[in-house]
Amino acid sequence: MKKTKREIILKTAASLFRSKGYSATSMRDLAKAVGMEAASLYNHIKSKQEILAALLLDAANSFMDGMERIENEDIKPLEKIERLISLHIRIAVKNTDAISLLTQEWRHLEGEAYTEFNSKRKDYEKRFKNILIRGIESEEIKNVNPDVALFSILSTMRWFYAWYSKKDGFSIGELEQQFSDVLIVGLKN
Amino acid sequence: MKKTKREIILKTAASLFRSKGYSATSMRDLAKAVGMEAASLYNHIKSKQEILAALLLDAANSFMDGMERIENEDIKPLEKIERLISLHIRIAVKNTDAISLLTQEWRHLEGEAYTEFNSKRKDYEKRFKNILIRGIESEEIKNVNPDVALFSILSTMRWFYAWYSKKDGFSIGELEQQFSDVLIVGLKN
Repeated sequence: MKKTKREIILKTAASLFRSKGYSATSMRDLAKAVGMEAASLYNHIKSKQEILAALLLDAANSFMDGMERIENEDIKPLEKIERLISLHIRIAVKNTDAISLLTQEWRHLEGEAYTEFNSKRKDYEKRFKNILIRGIESEEIKNVNPDVALFSILSTMRWFYAWYSKKDGFSIGELEQQFSDVLIVGLKN
Repeated sequence: MKKTKREIILKTAASLFRSKGYSATSMRDLAKAVGMEAASLYNHIKSKQEILAALLLDAANSFMDGMERIENEDIKPLEKIERLISLHIRIAVKNTDAISLLTQEWRHLEGEAYTEFNSKRKDYEKRFKNILIRGIESEEIKNVNPDVALFSILSTMRWFYAWYSKKDGFSIGELEQQFSDVLIVGLKN
């Protein structure tokens, strides 16, 4: 029961942080949105910072778990890139509010949470780039600049949540197909 | 002479808005950074809002002028997309600080400046999308979802300034080539 309450608090906080920003959201706003007294909120959660850290490290762990799984699959690099694009889409569709915090609000993380988040982010990007490099080496991927390719995919995927929030009627399968088309196959016929 | 002073003020403000954010930058900070008394700053500029509007509308106009020129060129849609990618790269390399404001700080625009900026942004995106659609219709461009293609190119180009600020040693020609490769030709060999 206590766990469920905590989950509701985290979900509501993600939505408030997204719409008002982390700095402008108070514990009082959060208590009101959850329908609790501010005092009882503190039975479940110590601080706004604890909430931000929980939301962002959960998101980071979803990406790290996905990367681990995809790295270990016995498929070629380009198919791994496709799976990673799907991973981004699926996580963003499922946790749109929490994922929105990955673009800006993560800057408000403090101390160890900041360090852990940043180290996971860098590790993720390094492993993603390594898959691109292996694909280029095996000539499955064109001889592009891997930094430019990584940056293009991650910029698109980072803002996908905002684009998706304004669109209707796409299934996950269609989204995966359309983003793979554009990001992997390119525009040139 | 007065115009040059105004230019120095705008350039310095762009750099402060980028590093501290628009909200956190005071006219006092700006006066100090320019090396003027706050009182004499007001001989050149009425308000922080006037500066933000000047910076963002200048940037918007550079994109609109580029779009106008490229639309009127007698070249195929895919080559127009290439020219638009170059346009983004050239503007961002030349005015990195001002361009950084296009990602977040534009939200602080008020009144008519906000309306004008948003209407230019929408018009630009609509015209960009029309070029993509014409390319798809003539089968020069693959049958991708034009909204997804537009979003992918613009997300990458919007954050190009941040990527570029951390990189060294690329010429403009190399940047144009590498981003065209990734965004137009794709990864798949």
